Amino acid sequence: MLKQEIINNFVSPNGTNRSEVDTLVRQFSAQLFDFLTNSVETSPLPEFHNVDSAFFQIPVAELSIQEIKDKLEVIYKSSMNAANPRYLGHMDSIPSIYSILGDYIASALNNNMLSLEMSPLLTQLENNLMSQFANLFGLPSGSGGVMLSGGTLANLQALVVARNNKLKIKDGNVYSLLQQPVVFTSDVAHVSVVKSCMLMGIGSSNVVKVKSNQNAQMCVDDLILKIDEQIKLGNIPFAIVATAGTTITGSIDPLNEIANIAKRFNLWFHVDAIYGGALIFSVEHKNLLNGIELADSISFNPQKWLYVAKTCSMVLFRDFSGMVDNFRITAPYMKDQEHFINLGEITVQGSKYAEVLKLWLSLLGLGISGYQQLILHCYVLRDVFVDKAACRKYLELATNPDTNVICFRIMNSDADQCDLLNEQLQSYLLRQCGFFVSMPKFKGQNWLRVVLINPFITDEIIDELFTKIDWFVQNSN
Amino acid sequence: MLKQEIINNFVSPNGTNRSEVDTLVRQFSAQLFDFLTNSVETSPLPEFHNVDSAFFQIPVAELSIQEIKDKLEVIYKSSMNAANPRYLGHMDSIPSIYSILGDYIASALNNNMLSLEMSPLLTQLENNLMSQFANLFGLPSGSGGVMLSGGTLANLQALVVARNNKLKIKDGNVYSLLQQPVVFTSDVAHVSVVKSCMLMGIGSSNVVKVKSNQNAQMCVDDLILKIDEQIKLGNIPFAIVATAGTTITGSIDPLNEIANIAKRFNLWFHVDAIYGGALIFSVEHKNLLNGIELADSISFNPQKWLYVAKTCSMVLFRDFSGMVDNFRITAPYMKDQEHFINLGEITVQGSKYAEVLKLWLSLLGLGISGYQQLILHCYVLRDVFVDKAACRKYLELATNPDTNVICFRIMNSDADQCDLLNEQLQSYLLRQCGFFVSMPKFKGQNWLRVVLINPFITDEIIDELFTKIDWFVQNSN
Repeated sequence: MLKQEIINNFVSPNGTNRSEVDTLVRQFSAQLFDFLTNSVETSPLPEFHNVDSAFFQIPVAELSIQEIKDKLEVIYKSSMNAANPRYLGHMDSIPSIYSILGDYIASALNNNMLSLEMSPLLTQLENNLMSQFANLFGLPSGSGGVMLSGGTLANLQALVVARNNKLKIKDGNVYSLLQQPVVFTSDVAHVSVVKSCMLMGIGSSNVVKVKSNQNAQMCVDDLILKIDEQIKLGNIPFAIVATAGTTITGSIDPLNEIANIAKRFNLWFHVDAIYGGALIFSVEHKNLLNGIELADSISFNPQKWLYVAKTCSMVLFRDFSGMVDNFRITAPYMKDQEHFINLGEITVQGSKYAEVLKLWLSLLGLGISGYQQLILHCYVLRDVFVDKAACRKYLELATNPDTNVICFRIMNSDADQCDLLNEQLQSYLLRQCGFFVSMPKFKGQNWLRVVLINPFITDEIIDELFTKIDWFVQNSN
Repeated sequence: MLKQEIINNFVSPNGTNRSEVDTLVRQFSAQLFDFLTNSVETSPLPEFHNVDSAFFQIPVAELSIQEIKDKLEVIYKSSMNAANPRYLGHMDSIPSIYSILGDYIASALNNNMLSLEMSPLLTQLENNLMSQFANLFGLPSGSGGVMLSGGTLANLQALVVARNNKLKIKDGNVYSLLQQPVVFTSDVAHVSVVKSCMLMGIGSSNVVKVKSNQNAQMCVDDLILKIDEQIKLGNIPFAIVATAGTTITGSIDPLNEIANIAKRFNLWFHVDAIYGGALIFSVEHKNLLNGIELADSISFNPQKWLYVAKTCSMVLFRDFSGMVDNFRITAPYMKDQEHFINLGEITVQGSKYAEVLKLWLSLLGLGISGYQQLILHCYVLRDVFVDKAACRKYLELATNPDTNVICFRIMNSDADQCDLLNEQLQSYLLRQCGFFVSMPKFKGQNWLRVVLINPFITDEIIDELFTKIDWFVQNSN
């Protein structure tokens, strides 16, 4: 009934258009891999330009394969190019091939993690893999978790469960409370804590910011002070969010001490290990996570340091059935299941694709030992970088880096001059040298930030970066 | 420094391992397409079985390509198989090839929709495409939207903006309110409305359920009654959620009338067009959406009737800058931009992959005219189905279907017998005949539900289904 041109937009389930499909897929796959295998030739961050809206127009009639490939070519050449090993600016890296294939396959299978009926095997995979991760973090038996599309959602779900549990409002009615609820996190914690509190009815201004020390780690003395202060004000503290791997400097809060304080005040203890959680795979640096096994909940993003394509995030709970009890929303169109709860009933999202597949394939392709080596490599690069920075009198580091996230800058006694100089250096590195370092605000000033995560970064590349910085400093006065 | 086996898990940006990568990709791609082009050979919904946890174990050392392919083979054979045209049960269909390729490419590029810096072209694409969709829905200039990973998040964002706007709490503090806020939706609306209210601090029990009529559409008289009732109770109504395409029967609420009531009581008017929104591409049936152009916000999922792989969802706002004003949460690690707001600041999610790419590629590959034909085809199938059901005295329809979602059942004067009989029919169709129809609860009873969405469904397949139903009825007494 439908014309063949329309039908050929789908893989016929009985193979009637296999040759057309193969041709189509081969062309786009070739274009993609031609780009990926030459991504050093493209700037790590191409110059921004406004694209004319005609380029994006939804057409009345379908375009030809060549016309679509031409549009994609523009996208390849104008996108963030984190595969280039001179892209050093953010926690976004080159994804593993298995994670790319995982997305390809998950997309084609198009199962729905909403319910067991719509993803009979993949629901089991997610359930099982989350239990394995909970164990890797040292959570006891009875722990487990769910996957979500990004770290903000993982932190949101943890805080909603904390709210419902600690404030005893299973139906989530914040209006019914007798006191203003408040959450504690450090002044360098991720913005998703504030966003979550805006979303969940607590109010963004009721996130109490605890001071951080010179290494951007939460000051526990100030935490106690602030909790006491809030109690005196008549407010009701219900959760502390510690960070294992802050966004700007990769710093890890003193988890054991914070766990003790949470216990003392009967607060929910959530660890945002979105970045640093990958250290469970490190023999040498796992100890940085000591205390995380005391958490009520942990959020972790394989989409960062486990090299899985975005999005891929999880939130783990010490007491999985307690989480279910404080969160579950059922639906009449989801069949009751004996063995597994429909994931849509116990996650912030409803319909969801099988993000778990790419995580699992990456783990199968690399093994725990592969991840150990990758993380170790990043620490070797960190040491190389820190040594080179230390022997240059004109540079300073923002912190003593706990991980492979490093903030540095050219020193200058005048704050405005300092900001300007580092801004110029960033621009010089990108425009003249093909290096991308990011420039966050930290303690009100510009810093340059590298995340040494790409497996193709070598000592030579770091050498080259410092040579460029040296040249800039010598010629900028 | 890293061993070559580890490096070969990534596409080298200078092509040093292209042949290894090509071999790997070719093998998995061949396996995938061998399955897809023969998916009629696999049951639309394979029998559920518990998988031994050893199968899912994270290995210490990497597995071989063959070992990984063997595991994938199990996944292919045990997953929901919606590509099979005898899979009729849910709003999950076979995805377009371009949408599968879109995920493949987006995953490999691994841009981050969090900020313009991390997705310079793709942020523009999302921004532009959302404006085009807002226009297609008839929203005025100044409208626009954002994409989110699934419809629940789209409804959540709409309701959060409604809450912050109508209750004048930009920071989201529900505790600070003087009256209990309430939301109205029909008693057959999607569960995400209740879930959103649990998440956002309104309380799941403060979703007031408005009666639906015999066609599962919201009764406007009851809506007015319920609003008056809540006002008398001292509560504060702030939003109405109408549905264009309910989950169970695909019904469309009377949007014009509801818009008038929303205006009269100064309530936010949100339309959950998650399913039915696709009708903007239908010449013949677009009129069913009349009144949607009066909405304050609209949620719509291309992942359903636009045949885009999951997840792919959007929420559109009549007043885009008003949405920004009532939602935006900024972050110090995101660079201020002149032309485009970082999407992470104005969406429920933070980091997000470029879901927009697969939507755009599908639109380019099919064009508006291709989508017109696909939707028309579904309506032709609906008419065939309804005619065949009508001429069988032993069958009844739950509603007069507005779309291609149809609930039917074998009639029986005894309610328990009726439930049992239809359960047996569902099981017979799946186990003996290779057809999957779903079995939701509707008005407290079992109904059988088909969603005639797969482009490979033919009149012959519907004929075959009714022949099987006839046989079952004749032999079940």
